[in-house]
Amino acid sequence: MTEQHPFDTATTLAPLSEGLFQGHTSPAYGNIAGPFGGVTAANMMQAVLQDSRAQGDPISITVNFCAAVADGEFEIVAEPKRSGKYLQHWSVELTQGPKTCTTATVICAKRTADFSHQPANPPDAALYEECEPMTNQGRLNWLNRYDFRFSEGAPDFTGPLDPALRSARSVQYVSDNPPRPLDYLSLTAISDGFLLRMFNIRPKFVPMGTVSLTTHFIGSAADMAEHGDRPLLGMADATRFHGNFHDQHMQLWSASGKLLAMGTQIVWFKE
Amino acid sequence: MTEQHPFDTATTLAPLSEGLFQGHTSPAYGNIAGPFGGVTAANMMQAVLQDSRAQGDPISITVNFCAAVADGEFEIVAEPKRSGKYLQHWSVELTQGPKTCTTATVICAKRTADFSHQPANPPDAALYEECEPMTNQGRLNWLNRYDFRFSEGAPDFTGPLDPALRSARSVQYVSDNPPRPLDYLSLTAISDGFLLRMFNIRPKFVPMGTVSLTTHFIGSAADMAEHGDRPLLGMADATRFHGNFHDQHMQLWSASGKLLAMGTQIVWFKE
Repeated sequence: MTEQHPFDTATTLAPLSEGLFQGHTSPAYGNIAGPFGGVTAANMMQAVLQDSRAQGDPISITVNFCAAVADGEFEIVAEPKRSGKYLQHWSVELTQGPKTCTTATVICAKRTADFSHQPANPPDAALYEECEPMTNQGRLNWLNRYDFRFSEGAPDFTGPLDPALRSARSVQYVSDNPPRPLDYLSLTAISDGFLLRMFNIRPKFVPMGTVSLTTHFIGSAADMAEHGDRPLLGMADATRFHGNFHDQHMQLWSASGKLLAMGTQIVWFKE
Repeated sequence: MTEQHPFDTATTLAPLSEGLFQGHTSPAYGNIAGPFGGVTAANMMQAVLQDSRAQGDPISITVNFCAAVADGEFEIVAEPKRSGKYLQHWSVELTQGPKTCTTATVICAKRTADFSHQPANPPDAALYEECEPMTNQGRLNWLNRYDFRFSEGAPDFTGPLDPALRSARSVQYVSDNPPRPLDYLSLTAISDGFLLRMFNIRPKFVPMGTVSLTTHFIGSAADMAEHGDRPLLGMADATRFHGNFHDQHMQLWSASGKLLAMGTQIVWFKE
């Protein structure tokens, strides 16, 4: 019997009734408090993908992390707001008891056009084999569920604190650990897998967290099948840190150099 | 008596009851069909800003354009989903009769930290005075409500169609016409004011439209007051066009070189 991949365990939802699902946090993806946000985002996506009313493939998700998800059970309600010829809009909400923990909007689409054009190129990067695996992530379980290899902008978990601010930019490989064929669900989680840029520029443990995450899926299902379980090449950077918040943008590229997803985050930090 | 600015007319909402507002589309901001999406986005923001339960300043908005807004009246429901010590999450929905036209999530925050750092720089651009105003926008009323001046990547409204694809990138100045002091409301609208990159690379009139828009506000209210009614410097670009969709990302910079807002869109296009 094949053991289930921990990511599949962490994104298993039980249907309770139409548009209502129950899930359970997974210790394998534990973060400082509660689960890794990327797995929460994937569960918001999963509710739509499992809903019999879903049409087409996802093209976009916005996830708002309203309050910490406590370890344990949660419920997700998925509601189709509008279904058209090409596009379908969903509102999704994750609750624990009376408390709204996470809200999301998901958009699905039927994709048929052949026009394809990629004006941008993947970032320059060392070969995967030349990049050291990330170490020292220690007690954050979710970091061990990915193989992170940095070509540029590796985080410093050890200090000592250098008073000079570092670059906000990282170029890195990322894949599930153990490997798992890429799909929209894992791509959703990985799109939240870039460390917070605040920690990149100033490796100091202060309270910080993603407030809202938006990921657009430009890659098709065929692009993802072609990519398989190889490492993705990722780039993350930030533009400005100011008044408790900073932006963060990212790109995720397939092994053959196709942009699969891009997006932005807004991150809260304490001084 | 001073005449009201057309943007204020277009974003006037009448409160009907707690969290329920009525608005009316404004011909001054008319697009090909219905209103300019940026004004719809601003109205989603306005519902939150006018709500007596709102706490702090906006830091993020995601607007999903589910269906065309018809010219005429509309209603907006704003619902606070979660209010914490620092952050407040809202869900907002615009309807016309039984039809959901637009959904949005808005996040407000209290901002106190002094830490400020801007690793990125504004794009290189010619001086505002050296850039020609955009012309030939003709029948699209909303384009006349802005002063667009392109340093790079001006759109071609006249053709003839060159079979070679052009650059997806634009660097441009933008301000309200007539001038109006910048606030979160007008910044929301302007963040949707970059032309669709599909039209930039291939100036052919085919059906296309923004499906979802996310804008993060890194600039504070003080940054906006300092900026006043001067032109913003904007940059827009795209990474990949594939299977009926392309991404688009943008930055908006103050006259003194501070990033005020950044964000992304996903755009649908027909072949």
